[in-house]
Amino acid sequence: MRFFYLITGLLLWQMSTAQQNTPALSDEFVLVIHGGAGTILKKNMTPEKEKAYNDALEMALKIGYDTLKKGGTALDAVEMAVRYMEDCPLFNAGKGAVFTNEGKNELDAAIMNGKTLAAGSIAGVTTIKNPISTARAVMEKSNHVMLIGKGAEKFAAENHQTIVDPSYFFTEQRWEALQDAKREDSLKQTQKTPDHLALKQPENRDYKYGTVGAVALDRYGNLAAATSTGGMTNKKFGRVGDAPIIGAGTYANNKTCAISCTGWGEYFIRLTMAKTISDMMEFGNWKLTDATNEMVMKRLPALGGDGGLIALDKDGNITLPFCTEGMYRGFVRQDGKTTVKIYKE
Amino acid sequence: MRFFYLITGLLLWQMSTAQQNTPALSDEFVLVIHGGAGTILKKNMTPEKEKAYNDALEMALKIGYDTLKKGGTALDAVEMAVRYMEDCPLFNAGKGAVFTNEGKNELDAAIMNGKTLAAGSIAGVTTIKNPISTARAVMEKSNHVMLIGKGAEKFAAENHQTIVDPSYFFTEQRWEALQDAKREDSLKQTQKTPDHLALKQPENRDYKYGTVGAVALDRYGNLAAATSTGGMTNKKFGRVGDAPIIGAGTYANNKTCAISCTGWGEYFIRLTMAKTISDMMEFGNWKLTDATNEMVMKRLPALGGDGGLIALDKDGNITLPFCTEGMYRGFVRQDGKTTVKIYKE
Repeated sequence: MRFFYLITGLLLWQMSTAQQNTPALSDEFVLVIHGGAGTILKKNMTPEKEKAYNDALEMALKIGYDTLKKGGTALDAVEMAVRYMEDCPLFNAGKGAVFTNEGKNELDAAIMNGKTLAAGSIAGVTTIKNPISTARAVMEKSNHVMLIGKGAEKFAAENHQTIVDPSYFFTEQRWEALQDAKREDSLKQTQKTPDHLALKQPENRDYKYGTVGAVALDRYGNLAAATSTGGMTNKKFGRVGDAPIIGAGTYANNKTCAISCTGWGEYFIRLTMAKTISDMMEFGNWKLTDATNEMVMKRLPALGGDGGLIALDKDGNITLPFCTEGMYRGFVRQDGKTTVKIYKE
Repeated sequence: MRFFYLITGLLLWQMSTAQQNTPALSDEFVLVIHGGAGTILKKNMTPEKEKAYNDALEMALKIGYDTLKKGGTALDAVEMAVRYMEDCPLFNAGKGAVFTNEGKNELDAAIMNGKTLAAGSIAGVTTIKNPISTARAVMEKSNHVMLIGKGAEKFAAENHQTIVDPSYFFTEQRWEALQDAKREDSLKQTQKTPDHLALKQPENRDYKYGTVGAVALDRYGNLAAATSTGGMTNKKFGRVGDAPIIGAGTYANNKTCAISCTGWGEYFIRLTMAKTISDMMEFGNWKLTDATNEMVMKRLPALGGDGGLIALDKDGNITLPFCTEGMYRGFVRQDGKTTVKIYKE
């Protein structure tokens, strides 16, 4: 009988230790998403189109929220939310990707884990259904951070990613946008538009750029960021924007913040947008909103670019600044109350 | 006669104004170069090989020095110095590029102008003789920052870059290195080496990675940085390292510093190495050497990576830290006295 008490005691002690070693999950978690920034004006939007965008943003938030609520990681949440937007033809990523000058869809994506600074990224792929999931596979199943082109597609195939025929990415609306862009380009050449203005986005044309992205803080206190894009309509020469560049369009670090950008990628690369904001916080003690405002509302337009971003710090503070007319965006916290917006406030 | 005096007076005034508007060229200028960091040990080097490396570094410095001395820009100097190293089969860039797993040479390069934050970069190209010059053409002749693969090659051809047959990049020494690497990989697979150690560089094998780079401060007070590489021997899946990533392996900003990195690229990308050092200076008032030491000697090995970099601030201070056994490196100032080194001090 003495042995029985001893063993029961040991078992109880063991159980209480195990419980202590599993940290209690925080009740707080946050997900922020975007579906691209651009010249989005209410006067040019139909109620049907507006509703479609709002519904899609709501659904992406719901998918990420459910993941976080049941104890999924920030990485899971941003991957799931971005996957949904990749599969939705409304956004310039995955199924809704814009066309290159050669009439192809070249996709880029990146993901980063704020806990470990692990990162994965792919660029210039044409046959991967969900680039964000392949970016995650690069992070978790390869020794590399960035894979491009045919090589990235080979890696995807070997790692059980869904491969599709390039025709999967065809949508009528994006094809028309390419034809518009080509017409405009030839018009500009006749009119001798200065080169540096040739990429300036015309009013109510969000075809030029567009991106989807998500940042999340999970119940373990970890941050993650994910971005996916079809790039720029009518892009040439294998152009790569900021989305797949770690530190430019995508960055996450538990010490500071998680960020996903959208906009005129060349300027985001030159400013190393996302990492600069993190560094302002880490080395200059800037607050998240001050740092993002300085970069998005001042330095980005000062250099000649435009766009926006979503940012989330380790304490759950969020900010969604943009210097364009609009940005498809939304967020949700642990209470499950979603907020989605399109235009300027 | 009164008119004669008036006109002479006006002319003299005009000339003196013109002179005032042309700023006197500074007498100070600096060029710093590297030819890659790695496991370079004196005991494994022959005197002939050592001399060949020293001579090549001296020549690259001389070419850049001559450019700067006669009033050439920092951009010109870094491009010229890197071009020379690309053409030299000793270094892993251009002619001396290492082979991929598929037996190809895939080249990456980037350049950045510290005055304007303009930048150009190419990745995964196989037919461009001097990737650094094409990166400069991307910066100066396109609306883009980064071009990859076949698209980048098409851009190069359209912009008068020298195109070569891929066989131009064949060198016996790199081909043997690929065979060695493959043998080792298959050995590791038999021995079940943990995946995260599979890329660890074996002693005295500088084939795994290697890069060339240059940073310069010119007589106009402008900074520039350039990096070029053949990547990693036996690399698969279109892997891209830090060299062509603006902010990771290459960065220049007149406000702070110019940096070119070499080493295990994945870690340099995850740390956004070059821009972080610039940000430590801009937002945290770190000194150049303190910032580079923190990043290269502490954070880089703490994350599990290794490598080195060259850095030059706007006041002409330089530092060349590395946490590997050696780094091919050198510098020259306005006095023309060159310093080249290979091993640890």
